Amino acid sequence: MSATVVDDLRRVLPAEVLVTDPDVIAGYSHDDAEWAPWQPAAAVVRPRDAAQVQAVVRACLATGTPVVPRGAGTGLSGAANATAGSVVVAFDAMDAILRIDPAERLAVVQPGVVNDRLRAACAEQGLWYPPDPASSPWSTIGGNVATNAGGVCCVKYGVTRDYVLALELVNGLGELVRVGRTTAKGVAGYDLCSLLVGAEGTLGVVTEVTVRLRPARAPEHTVVGYFDSVTAAGAAVAEVGRAGVTPSALELVDRRCLEAVDAWKNMGLTAEAEVLLLGRVDAPGAAGEAEADALVGCFERGGASWAARSADAEEADALFAARRLAYPALERLGPVLTEDVCVPVGAVPEMLTRITAIAARHHTVVANIAHAGDGNLHPLLITPAGDEAARNRAQAAFAEIIDGCLELGGTVSGEHGVGLLKLPGLAREQSPAVQAMQRAVKQALDPHGILNPGKAIV
Amino acid sequence: MSATVVDDLRRVLPAEVLVTDPDVIAGYSHDDAEWAPWQPAAAVVRPRDAAQVQAVVRACLATGTPVVPRGAGTGLSGAANATAGSVVVAFDAMDAILRIDPAERLAVVQPGVVNDRLRAACAEQGLWYPPDPASSPWSTIGGNVATNAGGVCCVKYGVTRDYVLALELVNGLGELVRVGRTTAKGVAGYDLCSLLVGAEGTLGVVTEVTVRLRPARAPEHTVVGYFDSVTAAGAAVAEVGRAGVTPSALELVDRRCLEAVDAWKNMGLTAEAEVLLLGRVDAPGAAGEAEADALVGCFERGGASWAARSADAEEADALFAARRLAYPALERLGPVLTEDVCVPVGAVPEMLTRITAIAARHHTVVANIAHAGDGNLHPLLITPAGDEAARNRAQAAFAEIIDGCLELGGTVSGEHGVGLLKLPGLAREQSPAVQAMQRAVKQALDPHGILNPGKAIV
Repeated sequence: MSATVVDDLRRVLPAEVLVTDPDVIAGYSHDDAEWAPWQPAAAVVRPRDAAQVQAVVRACLATGTPVVPRGAGTGLSGAANATAGSVVVAFDAMDAILRIDPAERLAVVQPGVVNDRLRAACAEQGLWYPPDPASSPWSTIGGNVATNAGGVCCVKYGVTRDYVLALELVNGLGELVRVGRTTAKGVAGYDLCSLLVGAEGTLGVVTEVTVRLRPARAPEHTVVGYFDSVTAAGAAVAEVGRAGVTPSALELVDRRCLEAVDAWKNMGLTAEAEVLLLGRVDAPGAAGEAEADALVGCFERGGASWAARSADAEEADALFAARRLAYPALERLGPVLTEDVCVPVGAVPEMLTRITAIAARHHTVVANIAHAGDGNLHPLLITPAGDEAARNRAQAAFAEIIDGCLELGGTVSGEHGVGLLKLPGLAREQSPAVQAMQRAVKQALDPHGILNPGKAIV
Repeated sequence: MSATVVDDLRRVLPAEVLVTDPDVIAGYSHDDAEWAPWQPAAAVVRPRDAAQVQAVVRACLATGTPVVPRGAGTGLSGAANATAGSVVVAFDAMDAILRIDPAERLAVVQPGVVNDRLRAACAEQGLWYPPDPASSPWSTIGGNVATNAGGVCCVKYGVTRDYVLALELVNGLGELVRVGRTTAKGVAGYDLCSLLVGAEGTLGVVTEVTVRLRPARAPEHTVVGYFDSVTAAGAAVAEVGRAGVTPSALELVDRRCLEAVDAWKNMGLTAEAEVLLLGRVDAPGAAGEAEADALVGCFERGGASWAARSADAEEADALFAARRLAYPALERLGPVLTEDVCVPVGAVPEMLTRITAIAARHHTVVANIAHAGDGNLHPLLITPAGDEAARNRAQAAFAEIIDGCLELGGTVSGEHGVGLLKLPGLAREQSPAVQAMQRAVKQALDPHGILNPGKAIV
């Protein structure tokens, strides 16, 4: 099958967009999810335009070949992992910002644009594209759309889906179509655009994205709190929920993360505390000052050993940079299995307590970062490279964390997506009837089953 | 068929929830859309709980009977209109607010809860449910979900879909299922919840709604501008888009609307201007004052004959009340055909100019209200009762307004939905391939075609 499709691709595509070098293919055949299975694709296509994407999908339709779209490969659930014989469509060469429109507050981009590049281009025009996954220096808007990526500012400003107005895509029949709108509102027919966001390329291969923008916002104030335990920090998060303050960021970073970042970057961050909460608020003017004071009060009521507004912008930025660098810093210590459970905000203290207990029970090293204000926790399970027993213990802990999250009314994935790693969890979260509804939608929009099969739904 | 289903319903439902009185049925068999066709249903069911809704859907499945869910019937597109032999499910008796949770900032309600009642209950706890359609004193959350209702505050705070976290529904197989989540974030599987919102009951019959809430916001400032033409007012709206201000309301009301409200309510509103723009801003403290001043500047640059911050809260509230009352006030003058086109904000002046020209060309009286800041225009076409020629002229004008909107890159429905009235417009807005994708989704989730058939998609 794969020989046929590669021959077909050679016929319909310029030579320079088709990659058949096995070493290059291997690099393009998986994302950043530890232990998610992958096999080398038959070929990688790096299209230059939508017509080439359509040509790939049509060739794959003709031979029943799976199509696996990918962005930068920073995903943490295996959604971009290839199977043997599949064709990977990599969007690195489709990275144009086609339009930034200040009057309509929207941008039109190709899928391969890196998130930070779009954000910088918008900022130049006084505009802001909020979704800011920790991967923003590397990850692409196409990948962000596929996974419905979140980030630090979601707690106030929502996730990628909240900013996608329209998509151009190649659908499961190989047709190039547009869904969504370019107006501020619209209810014309079913919201296929929202359905495509977060579908991990299983319902269509996105070739262009129109995103909504906001005006640039007021500068943020940062509040830092030190806590003796993740549980105390969790209590402070629940206080914020009750206080009626909406922070623009509310991040939890534990000592283990700070130490790993320090060991790597020598930033001198490690604090005299087990856990840091990093809060930000961005109401303009005096209202922002009042919000910052309210946040300090919440941290103190939650049991902070120390809490204050950061008077030093550089220090505040360094702390947020450390949060962003925690994942790659920990990866230096060994393979990292990243959890992504999301629980009701009031259940954050209990969930963090359970994670600590689960880690101890399974003799697994767990570092914690969390979008705490969203209840979205990222315990990072770290194992020494090559230690099979440690890996088994980590996987048992991973499964128990999912149990705990579901018991507390949570969901198995807050923002990383189901991919491959969360398929078992999803099967426990959703009722059989809902699973059947999802399969029916997949069958409806990808009747030949070639679009990233085996991902996103069970 | 209908005799059979009514017999079946009698067997499975308590007598008091089944309505077979033809006069009562007639009142429940249509919404508020002028000239959208309807026929009396075979029966109306007023269920008390989800199990009864499920019993209705199962009885209808057994006999292939269409199920038409309805809220308060304030819809303006015919989405709740019955066909002969169908069964209407009216949610008036399922109007409980089940839970308001300040810590998680969510509410769980039955579909029949009236929008304003939910908003008032939330306000008592310092919380805010933003979506505020003009129908909010009467329309229900279930109806708002079915139509993805918008309103005055959408320009800053989004529409109903942005606030729906989870739904319980009876699906096309008669199963009672839950979709969505109760956490702040979540990407577990396809977003069936967003897909259901705005689907006009064609993909499931919603029996419970979980909505996201916001903390109560700062008091608003109101800015009023008088303009000599809708075109000038449209230019001011485009100025707001360019200025980087995000108003919490930006409404256009023309003299004809104000006169109709005055004639009805004697509020003494009619101004020395052809068109009013009513803006509101709600940034807290001094930032709000600055936003209000910026809005005055935009109005003046747009060509206002007079623009100022309203110093009189009562007057400001009266102006917004007039905007809300414009539709019922105009209905007193004769049948009103309501348009709902939405165009890019920069195209608002051009679209308003075209509407004026189209009205003149077809000798049709058009009053204008608009969520101008969203580009969502509601020209109201008024005809003398019983005047068939006037009605034909109004319908021709309606079609031309849709032409103009599509030429300007707009959508045929900003917030009222497709229902029946916008089916021809939708067929022109969407490509055949997208129409086929929508039909495939419908077929997937309603394989027996009983859920409000003939609405929402083409």
